[in-house]
Amino acid sequence: MFVLKSKDNAVVKSTVKLKKSARARRESGLFIAEGVRVCYDAVLSNANVVKFFSTENAMEKHREIFDKISEVADKTILVTPAVFAQISDTQSPQGFLCVIKTLDKISQFDTIKNSGKFLALENVQDPNNLGTVLRSAEAFAISGIIMSKDCCDIYNPKVVRGSMGAVFRLPFLICDTIKDFLYANPQITSFAAVVDSNAEKITDVQFVAPCVVVIGNEGNGLLQTTVDSCSQKITIPMTGKAESLNASVAASIIIWEMIK
Amino acid sequence: MFVLKSKDNAVVKSTVKLKKSARARRESGLFIAEGVRVCYDAVLSNANVVKFFSTENAMEKHREIFDKISEVADKTILVTPAVFAQISDTQSPQGFLCVIKTLDKISQFDTIKNSGKFLALENVQDPNNLGTVLRSAEAFAISGIIMSKDCCDIYNPKVVRGSMGAVFRLPFLICDTIKDFLYANPQITSFAAVVDSNAEKITDVQFVAPCVVVIGNEGNGLLQTTVDSCSQKITIPMTGKAESLNASVAASIIIWEMIK
Repeated sequence: MFVLKSKDNAVVKSTVKLKKSARARRESGLFIAEGVRVCYDAVLSNANVVKFFSTENAMEKHREIFDKISEVADKTILVTPAVFAQISDTQSPQGFLCVIKTLDKISQFDTIKNSGKFLALENVQDPNNLGTVLRSAEAFAISGIIMSKDCCDIYNPKVVRGSMGAVFRLPFLICDTIKDFLYANPQITSFAAVVDSNAEKITDVQFVAPCVVVIGNEGNGLLQTTVDSCSQKITIPMTGKAESLNASVAASIIIWEMIK
Repeated sequence: MFVLKSKDNAVVKSTVKLKKSARARRESGLFIAEGVRVCYDAVLSNANVVKFFSTENAMEKHREIFDKISEVADKTILVTPAVFAQISDTQSPQGFLCVIKTLDKISQFDTIKNSGKFLALENVQDPNNLGTVLRSAEAFAISGIIMSKDCCDIYNPKVVRGSMGAVFRLPFLICDTIKDFLYANPQITSFAAVVDSNAEKITDVQFVAPCVVVIGNEGNGLLQTTVDSCSQKITIPMTGKAESLNASVAASIIIWEMIK
């Protein structure tokens, strides 16, 4: 059984690039998913697995899942722990990592656009926030996610992992600006989430499909032009002293109110 | 104006220890708070600032806040960026860091115990989760936090920063076990948050003060003995596919439902 030992191998180097660079992911049409659970999620979601890296330890420990991933992967590559550490994005790697073709979600999206409840994200920068929001969106059965192209890359390894595989299953699309999306879809009622005690409280809003809630950047919120393009401004009423909530918490509470 | 350049200085070394070691914090009764906003929050909350480290750049950039912190600090120490990087816990340090005496919150806690809405955390391990939960708890005016002693250290620098200063303002107490706390406070109605579709939905529960919701470890949830000690089991109904929410999101949604 061949085990790859060289960190200078071209396959290792190109995988490291996919880990680090959004541009490399865009240009190659590939991204990485790391972890036993997330790799298995990719397979269950019929993702196109191009390469499957595993350490010998991980293979032995998770033999059944290893076999299933290996069966669908174009290529399975056993590597030493040192090589795995090179391609891994985590501090305590589990020893499974897949290179996957980026997903085509557009057609999926179009069929639900007249009846769904959506979340639109503008310039959300932190990959941990984005991953957590996707995870919440899936937990509460949001129909799909719209992202402006200045959001953090959805194929960032931290997003894929933090989403617990929701990236594979949630319909999403990336647009130039949220304003463009809203103008192109006037049938969808749009709500701008703002920190403004004069805006309508989320507890008083009827979220009737098709509708979309638009959420802005962690520090700066939404662009004023985006707020102006929305049907209505809404806010999370806060009783306490903190100026605002963590961005992914705020988004998750809004999702909760949209769906429940 | 003296600027400390040596990383080997005893003051620098003891501060690095406070950053890294919960034991060092416990034994010295000191912890660190980093960042312009968080250090200023400490001062506004009348925390006892023992040392205030600043770079010259940060002093010039935030002169007014520098002066206010410096006025209450026992000792103000200007350091080079290299020394600051040593004591700092962040990748892009803002150049302000305070060493602070741990807070006495017990008396504060006792006075509200008969009328408040509380959150109890059992074995919550991730400092980012704990910081985010404290931030949400303050935003929605939770009365206080109870933590089992096997939770991540509330004085961990990541918790202090992630809480956006809520650590300084929120009443909290640390107990041996949550079960002990519940037995000692039978007047407080207790709700065990579980992932169990048979438990009562949080949307159907009346959270009447005094009450406490108990939240468990990120991966394993609550101890069965803790669940058994609670008045009732409650759950967040999930319509979608994800198995569970991020721990800090789940806690925040429960807080939201407790308070609104």
